[in-house]
Amino acid sequence: MKTCVTLHQEELPRAWYNALSDLDRPLDPPLDPRTGEPIAPEALAALFPRACLEQEVATDRFIPIPEPVQEAYRRWRPTPLRRAVALERALGTPARIYFKYEGGSPTGSHKANTALAQAYYNRVEGTRRLATETGAGQWGSALAFACATFGLRCTVYMVRTSYEGKPYRRALIRLFGAEIFPSPSDRTAAGRAVLERDPGSPGSLGIAISEAVEEALRGDGTKYALGSVLNHVLLHQTVIGLEAIRELELAGDWPDVVVGCVGGGSNFAGLAFPFFGEARAGRRPLPRLLAVEPTACPSLTRGEYRYDFGDTARTTPLLKMHTLGADFVPPPLHAGGLRYHGMAPIVSRLVADGAVEAVAYDQADVFSSALLFARTEGIVPAPETAHAVHAAVELARRCAADGEEKVILIGFSGHGHFDMAAYEAALSGALQGVA
Amino acid sequence: MKTCVTLHQEELPRAWYNALSDLDRPLDPPLDPRTGEPIAPEALAALFPRACLEQEVATDRFIPIPEPVQEAYRRWRPTPLRRAVALERALGTPARIYFKYEGGSPTGSHKANTALAQAYYNRVEGTRRLATETGAGQWGSALAFACATFGLRCTVYMVRTSYEGKPYRRALIRLFGAEIFPSPSDRTAAGRAVLERDPGSPGSLGIAISEAVEEALRGDGTKYALGSVLNHVLLHQTVIGLEAIRELELAGDWPDVVVGCVGGGSNFAGLAFPFFGEARAGRRPLPRLLAVEPTACPSLTRGEYRYDFGDTARTTPLLKMHTLGADFVPPPLHAGGLRYHGMAPIVSRLVADGAVEAVAYDQADVFSSALLFARTEGIVPAPETAHAVHAAVELARRCAADGEEKVILIGFSGHGHFDMAAYEAALSGALQGVA
Repeated sequence: MKTCVTLHQEELPRAWYNALSDLDRPLDPPLDPRTGEPIAPEALAALFPRACLEQEVATDRFIPIPEPVQEAYRRWRPTPLRRAVALERALGTPARIYFKYEGGSPTGSHKANTALAQAYYNRVEGTRRLATETGAGQWGSALAFACATFGLRCTVYMVRTSYEGKPYRRALIRLFGAEIFPSPSDRTAAGRAVLERDPGSPGSLGIAISEAVEEALRGDGTKYALGSVLNHVLLHQTVIGLEAIRELELAGDWPDVVVGCVGGGSNFAGLAFPFFGEARAGRRPLPRLLAVEPTACPSLTRGEYRYDFGDTARTTPLLKMHTLGADFVPPPLHAGGLRYHGMAPIVSRLVADGAVEAVAYDQADVFSSALLFARTEGIVPAPETAHAVHAAVELARRCAADGEEKVILIGFSGHGHFDMAAYEAALSGALQGVA
Repeated sequence: MKTCVTLHQEELPRAWYNALSDLDRPLDPPLDPRTGEPIAPEALAALFPRACLEQEVATDRFIPIPEPVQEAYRRWRPTPLRRAVALERALGTPARIYFKYEGGSPTGSHKANTALAQAYYNRVEGTRRLATETGAGQWGSALAFACATFGLRCTVYMVRTSYEGKPYRRALIRLFGAEIFPSPSDRTAAGRAVLERDPGSPGSLGIAISEAVEEALRGDGTKYALGSVLNHVLLHQTVIGLEAIRELELAGDWPDVVVGCVGGGSNFAGLAFPFFGEARAGRRPLPRLLAVEPTACPSLTRGEYRYDFGDTARTTPLLKMHTLGADFVPPPLHAGGLRYHGMAPIVSRLVADGAVEAVAYDQADVFSSALLFARTEGIVPAPETAHAVHAAVELARRCAADGEEKVILIGFSGHGHFDMAAYEAALSGALQGVA
């Protein structure tokens, strides 16, 4: 039995799959909060390169991956599709559990897939520097790596609590040559305003976004980059699912359920959308597409589907999405990458349409499955990834109870080698449920 | 141009290469320090399983890898052979630089290759628990993972300074279900004796070995496992070089130089010995085999080739090897895995015979090459691996100066995601030369 299938390097997908092309009706457009009118992509040209803005509204079914981005992907892609045989045995389940492993990327997660594409397009269009925010640091380190690859400068605003609490991620960002500042900082008007009110502010993703956006609007050749939520970001991640489909074919199997964790939605979309596309094209049955979120930040399972701001500072266009409200402040959570009040508009739409299901789990349960996975498969899931692992474990247990031979595919978005403090807490019994 | 070649899963080597079979004359045997006479392998049966003791003296050219060990390897093996094109460009060198990447293993280094084999043989022979020591934690985490895989209990004595200074590695060891104690501990007579003399002892590898060995001698079904130096450990690592040879053939290239870092010698041997075997078999020219050590612990370049104890507590048999003396205490060094006073007997012999060359570098120079590698290739080398990277960079620079198109193969033994504190020091200019 094959326990690992990896495409050849020359089988790397040459185009991304664009889910916008397969929606029943067009996505509700972003709105200008001042006028309530749709915002034209060009209005965002100060922030994003033209190529990415075109991808925001493109309707082509496939969009070519530029050759230099393919070359950069080939450093670690195609990534392996593995079968979790030892986990299956431990669960005594007749289910077959596969996982698509994105932890082998230079920064240990799927984020590099879009970071490289965004850095490339910016480079081609003359951008000299990219500014961004980062919470737990997966995105910040991926963008720093991508900027090093394509010769751009990079400035990262890291939420102050993470800056202080995740020194290894901070070091990784610096190692790739980026400059990094704890946010709020005194480098921007937005940061100074916060510090004036609250000199000891721990920071937030909302504040960090405001600082990064302000850098990009200075007109000095700097643009802004976002690591999730937007259509072009989800598009770049579809390389994951496109590979997985071909690898499953080589393994001679097809999933009944595709499971991924969701924060902003890009990892889940990257794996699940190409399966949606295969079904739309009539080639394959649609698997259940299951998005897994923390009960502490349940935008899909408890949020409303409506227009809302993308940031807590209310500076972005309004997006139609599942949201807990731009003011929602999630409790502390080891899966920092899932602490987002909103959700990618395309994922939100597919949930509203019933093509995607959502479920929420508490982190204490999630970590107990993550430990089981690590001890059986030997691979430590990132706390975000652990949510998808837990959902798969729950499904596989149900199969064991019902004697059902389901095929489950997990989006394994990243390894947890930078997150061992969370596991230390879990092992010490110090990990709290935060439902 | 192919920048990454990975064998298919079904091309995983089915046998290890035994370098003992190709030595000009037999290795000098281990001696009993009390009598000065050779020690028969059976005398060590309380510590090691019979299969490993047989491998210590085996003369078969190839030794089959048991099927369950192959299955465990297949979780991440075969590992990729990558070409460092971006590094080549940055150096402006005509050299072609390849690296065999072992950082994708469950614990991020090559150590899992022997940990799984040792755990398997112990399991088959009825061992219920393995005890070991660990310094930086790469070996301890690999053995914990292997014991989880084959259902053995695992006890790790971790040098107290590392236990306190490397909390993430400690958590990884616990995560895999092992029990871990800072050494010296009050659990053993050896530990208590040290604590009585020096209650604040920071510990040493020598003390930790004594504690682990004492556990194994209690007769409660516990045996001992060592992560380097011994012949059977080096044997298990040859899966690295065997894969690399076939991947280089697929890439249509052959190395002029094979470079690996050396602490106890197992990573270097694992990559280099199969090339030695190819040359002995008359199939291929022998590349230069270059072992790289820190100037702070220069056993091959400054040590003597003579009989010495394997541990500082002078409890092990005497081994004929390059040694700085069993009393040698290397200065603090970020590459904790290279802080060993001795060297594997087979590596030592091949250096004495001229088949293997050695060179030593200071860690400040080593980290500057490691940063260059990370920024160009996107992969962060472990501090140990960084020594091999630096040697390759130096060779490639020489090629640039001379216009020589050499082919260099690096043994990339592990990633540095658990070692970011060292990089933080390097980036802050706080890293000291320790020559």
